[in-house]
Amino acid sequence: MIHKVQYYETDMMGITHHSNYIRWMEEARIELMDQLGFPYREMEAGGIVVPVKSVKVDYLKPCTFGDEVEITVGIQDFNGVVITIGYEMRVKENTVCKAVSEHVFLDRAGKFIRMKRTMPEFCAAVERMMAGSSLAEQKADSSDDRFTG
Amino acid sequence: MIHKVQYYETDMMGITHHSNYIRWMEEARIELMDQLGFPYREMEAGGIVVPVKSVKVDYLKPCTFGDEVEITVGIQDFNGVVITIGYEMRVKENTVCKAVSEHVFLDRAGKFIRMKRTMPEFCAAVERMMAGSSLAEQKADSSDDRFTG
Amino acid sequence: MIHKVQYYETDMMGITHHSNYIRWMEEARIELMDQLGFPYREMEAGGIVVPVKSVKVDYLKPCTFGDEVEITVGIQDFNGVVITIGYEMRVKENTVCKAVSEHVFLDRAGKFIRMKRTMPEFCAAVERMMAGSSLAEQKADSSDDRFTG
Amino acid sequence: MIHKVQYYETDMMGITHHSNYIRWMEEARIELMDQLGFPYREMEAGGIVVPVKSVKVDYLKPCTFGDEVEITVGIQDFNGVVITIGYEMRVKENTVCKAVSEHVFLDRAGKFIRMKRTMPEFCAAVERMMAGSSLAEQKADSSDDRFTG
Repeated sequence: MIHKVQYYETDMMGITHHSNYIRWMEEARIELMDQLGFPYREMEAGGIVVPVKSVKVDYLKPCTFGDEVEITVGIQDFNGVVITIGYEMRVKENTVCKAVSEHVFLDRAGKFIRMKRTMPEFCAAVERMMAGSSLAEQKADSSDDRFTG
Repeated sequence: MIHKVQYYETDMMGITHHSNYIRWMEEARIELMDQLGFPYREMEAGGIVVPVKSVKVDYLKPCTFGDEVEITVGIQDFNGVVITIGYEMRVKENTVCKAVSEHVFLDRAGKFIRMKRTMPEFCAAVERMMAGSSLAEQKADSSDDRFTG
Repeated sequence: MIHKVQYYETDMMGITHHSNYIRWMEEARIELMDQLGFPYREMEAGGIVVPVKSVKVDYLKPCTFGDEVEITVGIQDFNGVVITIGYEMRVKENTVCKAVSEHVFLDRAGKFIRMKRTMPEFCAAVERMMAGSSLAEQKADSSDDRFTG
Repeated sequence: MIHKVQYYETDMMGITHHSNYIRWMEEARIELMDQLGFPYREMEAGGIVVPVKSVKVDYLKPCTFGDEVEITVGIQDFNGVVITIGYEMRVKENTVCKAVSEHVFLDRAGKFIRMKRTMPEFCAAVERMMAGSSLAEQKADSSDDRFTG
């Protein structure tokens, strides 16, 4: 997907404020769930929430107002309880950000859901997507990049 | 410092949206720099910007509108080029979030500044603060916590 | 109340992004309801939501990172269905913003609540506050100010 | 233009937080300036900033996560110093929001620019767009709508 950087996403440093990348990860993740066939809106309507357990974000280069950020997203890992999602953001030929987020599946009472038992069709879709994914293989290498702004 | 969760920081899950913790880290970091004797506003006015190189955030428990989040912040590491800052956020007796951020020092042209040469008085203040800090010693252990919402 | 302008509230123009004043109005309004004896958190828990019907904001002077914005808030009008709230924001001796918002009271099904019948004690508290308020009298004059940036 | 409501734009009321409409107005306005042939990025690069002087927003119906908001934008008035822009936002057949914003043109020192003298080609483009616009004629009628949530 493409996210065009908005003026309201910049800060007085003249670049995108770093908190916005966290939001773009959510945009990309929700599009990923659409592609998976399990729109997030429907999952919540069905009583399953998928909060964020952790994020890890490496800001490699700045971007700013008007830039078109191309976000690639993929499932890196899923053990039935925790799902790990990877992100790479590019502006033209430059990688501006690499990130990973982890999520859990909870019912309305806030209890963990074991997806393999509760929603095996979701697990099957994740497996099919991971089999076809290339980002999943890039799993380990986000730590050796450096901010070069 | 205390950050009181605002209504506009919640989302339709009924809890604080996870992107806001990234912003509270900035609030706490700016207060830390005040305590250090180097207000961020003055550093930028003096031609030094301190962008975020990375963040790592573990969301341990949710919090919501009206909660008073007590944020403890400390310098974990500083090698003269990269500074590492640790955060712990509590609501009453519960730790809701642990986080780490890394930052670099750049001049107006976007080039790295070696702070030991350019601003030795800043480095000295950091060392004094780290000598007196307890969070700096908690450096390694943020990874063994789990979301328990 | 005082709101200290955060770095993440600025934009690349070097000033507070105008959307944040709308959020500070909410902060001030929620504090007003605390003072009224009807905390908003409790009203929602009791099944009453108070969405925004309209806002009108005049940006008179810019403010920026680190500024302490003093926000005065008062009830301008209440007819039992719509409540009108006025705001004045100052940084030191300068008025930076004047604003008005209107709100309605809805039940969980989204239907209008006639507060005089449903919650007469709320209406009485509003009347008492308006009797003692000075901002209520300043009702008409927000339109003759001009941006003088 | 279309803005798809993001999860991070909702609040615990389960709907879009009202501050986001102010941001969407900016998105629409920036697209309008592209259409006008004067991209905002280039104007700022050329030393002209166009801050917001006022906004007036009527929230007519709520919208929420996943909704596609169709935003129509047009120039309502321009006297060479202040430009007035009108907005209408629809989700399917429902008008969810009507709004107006006013803007001034400032140089880098914060002084008013008389656009007719400084940038007559901009004024000509505005006149051509207004001559072809329908929203400009809807100028007066945004006040007789009511929140009908």
